[in-house]
Amino acid sequence: MHISKMLAQSKEEGKATFSFEFFPPKTAQGVQNLYDRMDRMHGLGPKFIDVTWGAGGSLSHLTCEMVKVAQSVYGLETCMHLTCTDMERSKIDDALKTAYDAGCTNILALRGDPPRESEKWQQVQGGFKYAKDLVKYIREQYGDHFDVGVAGYSEGCDDNDDVDELIDHLKEKVDAGGTFIVTQMFYDTDIFIDWVHKVRAKGIDVPIIPGIMPISTHAAFLRRAKWSKIKIPGSWTRALEPIKNDDSEVREVGKGLVADMCRKLMDAGILHLHFYTMNLAQSSRMVLEELDLLPDVESPLQKPLPWRPSLGLKRREENVRPIFWRNRNRSYIARTQDWDEFPNGRWGDARSPAFGEFDAYGIGLKGSNEQNIKLWGKPTSVKDISNIFVKYMSGDLESLPWSESAISKEADTLQQNLIDLNRRGFFTINSQPAVNGAKSTHPVYGWGPAHGYVYQKAYLEILVSPEYIAELITRIERDPEITYYAVNKDGDLKTNSPEGPNAVTWGVFPGKEIVQPTIVEAVSFLAWKDEFYRLGQQWANCHPSVSPSRYVIEDVMDTWYLINIVHNNFQENNGIFPLFDGLEVAEMEKELHSTGLSNGETTNGDSEANGNGRPTPTTRKSTLNDLVEAAKSAASTVTNGITA
Amino acid sequence: MHISKMLAQSKEEGKATFSFEFFPPKTAQGVQNLYDRMDRMHGLGPKFIDVTWGAGGSLSHLTCEMVKVAQSVYGLETCMHLTCTDMERSKIDDALKTAYDAGCTNILALRGDPPRESEKWQQVQGGFKYAKDLVKYIREQYGDHFDVGVAGYSEGCDDNDDVDELIDHLKEKVDAGGTFIVTQMFYDTDIFIDWVHKVRAKGIDVPIIPGIMPISTHAAFLRRAKWSKIKIPGSWTRALEPIKNDDSEVREVGKGLVADMCRKLMDAGILHLHFYTMNLAQSSRMVLEELDLLPDVESPLQKPLPWRPSLGLKRREENVRPIFWRNRNRSYIARTQDWDEFPNGRWGDARSPAFGEFDAYGIGLKGSNEQNIKLWGKPTSVKDISNIFVKYMSGDLESLPWSESAISKEADTLQQNLIDLNRRGFFTINSQPAVNGAKSTHPVYGWGPAHGYVYQKAYLEILVSPEYIAELITRIERDPEITYYAVNKDGDLKTNSPEGPNAVTWGVFPGKEIVQPTIVEAVSFLAWKDEFYRLGQQWANCHPSVSPSRYVIEDVMDTWYLINIVHNNFQENNGIFPLFDGLEVAEMEKELHSTGLSNGETTNGDSEANGNGRPTPTTRKSTLNDLVEAAKSAASTVTNGITA
Repeated sequence: MHISKMLAQSKEEGKATFSFEFFPPKTAQGVQNLYDRMDRMHGLGPKFIDVTWGAGGSLSHLTCEMVKVAQSVYGLETCMHLTCTDMERSKIDDALKTAYDAGCTNILALRGDPPRESEKWQQVQGGFKYAKDLVKYIREQYGDHFDVGVAGYSEGCDDNDDVDELIDHLKEKVDAGGTFIVTQMFYDTDIFIDWVHKVRAKGIDVPIIPGIMPISTHAAFLRRAKWSKIKIPGSWTRALEPIKNDDSEVREVGKGLVADMCRKLMDAGILHLHFYTMNLAQSSRMVLEELDLLPDVESPLQKPLPWRPSLGLKRREENVRPIFWRNRNRSYIARTQDWDEFPNGRWGDARSPAFGEFDAYGIGLKGSNEQNIKLWGKPTSVKDISNIFVKYMSGDLESLPWSESAISKEADTLQQNLIDLNRRGFFTINSQPAVNGAKSTHPVYGWGPAHGYVYQKAYLEILVSPEYIAELITRIERDPEITYYAVNKDGDLKTNSPEGPNAVTWGVFPGKEIVQPTIVEAVSFLAWKDEFYRLGQQWANCHPSVSPSRYVIEDVMDTWYLINIVHNNFQENNGIFPLFDGLEVAEMEKELHSTGLSNGETTNGDSEANGNGRPTPTTRKSTLNDLVEAAKSAASTVTNGITA
Repeated sequence: MHISKMLAQSKEEGKATFSFEFFPPKTAQGVQNLYDRMDRMHGLGPKFIDVTWGAGGSLSHLTCEMVKVAQSVYGLETCMHLTCTDMERSKIDDALKTAYDAGCTNILALRGDPPRESEKWQQVQGGFKYAKDLVKYIREQYGDHFDVGVAGYSEGCDDNDDVDELIDHLKEKVDAGGTFIVTQMFYDTDIFIDWVHKVRAKGIDVPIIPGIMPISTHAAFLRRAKWSKIKIPGSWTRALEPIKNDDSEVREVGKGLVADMCRKLMDAGILHLHFYTMNLAQSSRMVLEELDLLPDVESPLQKPLPWRPSLGLKRREENVRPIFWRNRNRSYIARTQDWDEFPNGRWGDARSPAFGEFDAYGIGLKGSNEQNIKLWGKPTSVKDISNIFVKYMSGDLESLPWSESAISKEADTLQQNLIDLNRRGFFTINSQPAVNGAKSTHPVYGWGPAHGYVYQKAYLEILVSPEYIAELITRIERDPEITYYAVNKDGDLKTNSPEGPNAVTWGVFPGKEIVQPTIVEAVSFLAWKDEFYRLGQQWANCHPSVSPSRYVIEDVMDTWYLINIVHNNFQENNGIFPLFDGLEVAEMEKELHSTGLSNGETTNGDSEANGNGRPTPTTRKSTLNDLVEAAKSAASTVTNGITA
């Protein structure tokens, strides 16, 4: 959405809003950390974020990537900075095309800072001289597709101290097609408000967004003010100077000063605040907290859908996703990025099974082998794997190969059951409780507009040992209200579900059709199955090729079944867990005696001959169907001691 | 669905099933009565119905129409009879094409009875000589599209008494492509079962459907047996002869005899019974009741959707309809018959407003002027109209111009409120109560497969006098959970609803997406509005052009507003009725003093000059929006005495 439109909406509602500015970090690890931070800062509710243009153009590819990831993976409305500095026409064309393809609809058009080595800024061959030329060019090339912002200098810029002349330039930039103004940082609110009046007096009537620089340390505070040539009010100096050696005190007092400044701005009718975060969350967050602009813990930001919607190109209308990728949002985005339409053309009868290939960026297991071994240790038995899962379910482990982040609040009501199942050797991958019409504003389950009701069917995705899969399916098939899909690594699929998708999350809202954003179905489950077993194999591969850890993880991946179970009665049911009553994986403690392997030892040449360092399994399993039929006929002739 | 497939399903479930045969009546009134009867007999749950071929081909157009109406309007799976008698090739082609276009997938291919005037049956030029030729032809032309039935004569046919030779012919018909057999009527079960064994011994293994002729009168019983040359068992004669002059006694005893016969057939494994209804319901119904094959009052037939699905060509997948035509199913079918797809292509963003034209068959007001005046009387005041509505809501009037049948069971819980509103001069057109997750097997609200839950939002469509429309809308707009569309005859539309459809009926079922078969939305409401006011005008037109009845009905139609109201909170709400608290149309008793008209009088030449016999209204109404704005500003300055 265009920034000027968002601001108009907020103004109409009389609501104060804010945005965050980030810049491309210099290292790959820095980028990953920043993504995690952007993800968390999404929860604070910024109207949009800015990504600055890679310094001197050298990090420009990173700007483009960040814009794309912010839009599509994190669902953040993004404004891309674009400068003329050192930029040839073709580079500008590429950048605009990238922004367009990413679904970005906001550009901040800047002349840019002069490169350090040259005294005065100089135009590159074939490039633009002034920001207004860039604005004009964007309008010529893309019409109204982009909202185009321009910079405002309330206290002069790098190479020009004449504020009035700069306002004339600002007028030219707006006349050329600029639709909003972002200002430089400042600390003196009176100077700023005077400047706003002057700007308005010139007939410039587009929204003005003040740039707010929170105070992190005293040194940074002074350095930035000096660099920007802005005035520091005497009262600020008097407040900060005495405590300048105590960083936390500076942040605390600085928070109050910046918050006061923001209050004055809001009193003057300037309702949107743009924070220069310097890629850090804390000081911006403190100011917002002081201003009481953060969402409540009790009533957090209203989520438009139960998952984070993507704002990628053509994705804004997306409103259906399979549940399987709930804990791997990024890989889902990557694997579906080339789809033409959401959800139609994919979820209809003619939907294609062509999920994007694994080779797409971001699908594999995160982290280095060392990091992952540090995280998950060196399991040498099923019991060890069980302990890893139990630790994750208890909230003491931040990720699993299939879950990128810690266990969610929604699992709270299921937590004890999940811990219990994993302790008994059933490895839970994904789950949700039944919800029978909670208000759409519910702090945990709520999503969508107000005055609605949301529903869920109980769901459990679980990795089951070959020892119990047939018994489990037999129990499931006794209950007409439970549906499942079970599969192994080889793709041997069994289900009792009707064809087509099963909606497991849906919402009912005033004046709307029923929204059903999360589904379970065969086609996408098979695509998820490939990803699931591959992640498991990659986990195994973190360990040396003939180690017991490699062996035990591989063995589970090669022989265990992935099954998803939906309890379709969301009104009255005892959930899915009673299906597992009395079941517990036998010999979890056994440390691979059959292979002669034990912790730290390696195998002999014989097992090497099998290519993956493991002996050939002695028994090859029959098909899932055969297993279940056998279990059923056994059950009909003997009495079993199972609590139903 | 193919009859052979239906029978295979029933057989697998071990369930006895039945079907009804009808023939084309000779008069238009007879056709209408038969449709009404077919509609009611749908509720008995026949697997399919047969429509016989118009005698000698002269009523063949009626056969085609009946097949089409049964398939598309009444949602009855239909088998069309087709004979070679007197039929040229082109006529057969036409009939097959009509059946295909109607969505019919079952044909009973017959040679046909010889025309009365010729002693022996003769082949028409270019026609077929034997039924087997017709079977073969249908297979050649349509492949497997049609299930093709053939006739079996267990006691010989018209011009051939040699049962064995007839079995040879039967074998030829099946070999030519016949996939099921319908037999002639019979009363001697032993003969029939012997015949079945002979047929099977010949290697004929398609399903055999026995023709059952219930007994209505003794004379008909004898006449039909004689005409068909079938044996009457001695025990039947002994039971019926002594009571032959008492029709009701004959029916009662006959019911027992026929039911016994059916039981013997079912014991012999023949689970499907085909009733020759002779276009009458009673005697077939009595036999079915005796056999305990009728649906329970407590747990009636499970409806697949909340409305009767059409089985017309391309319509089998239809699963969304606007609520507005709920009481005018037939006109909805007629107005959408040319659509290419259901529901897509119409209910998406690109849906076309092109509902079929009014001129389509079956859209206008039913009945002659005289019949309608007899039904609804001669209202001369709003109060009189109010009384008509109250009578309908009380169940004492079988129809209204906008409702083709008596008030439904579903309205029960609303009935007192509806009567009350109509008494106060608010004319209710359509309504449903809120339902918060009733079981899909619920006897009143249930539909769809078992183990599901169904939901409804409270809905009320109502005709409101210009006196109160603004106040009503003002009250509605105070509640964010209520949405509405209001319109007048001229199409002045006002709404507070988001764009797009509002689902007002939906169901949640195991393993399925949410089904949302009934919606409220703008485009179709405007199409319904045209139909609504036109029906009102047609009602007015039943009365002489300058009569008080014509005037008062026209006045209501010209100036009152049609408004539909949805209470979107289906979990907790007091319904829609409190919106009307304290409102009552003033001067309902007034008998048109302003026009000088009173019951039976006519107007003078001046009013004639207006073209419709009415004086020009003194005040022309402002737009709905102006009215509501005026009401709102009035409300903000004065205290009104309304109970909210």
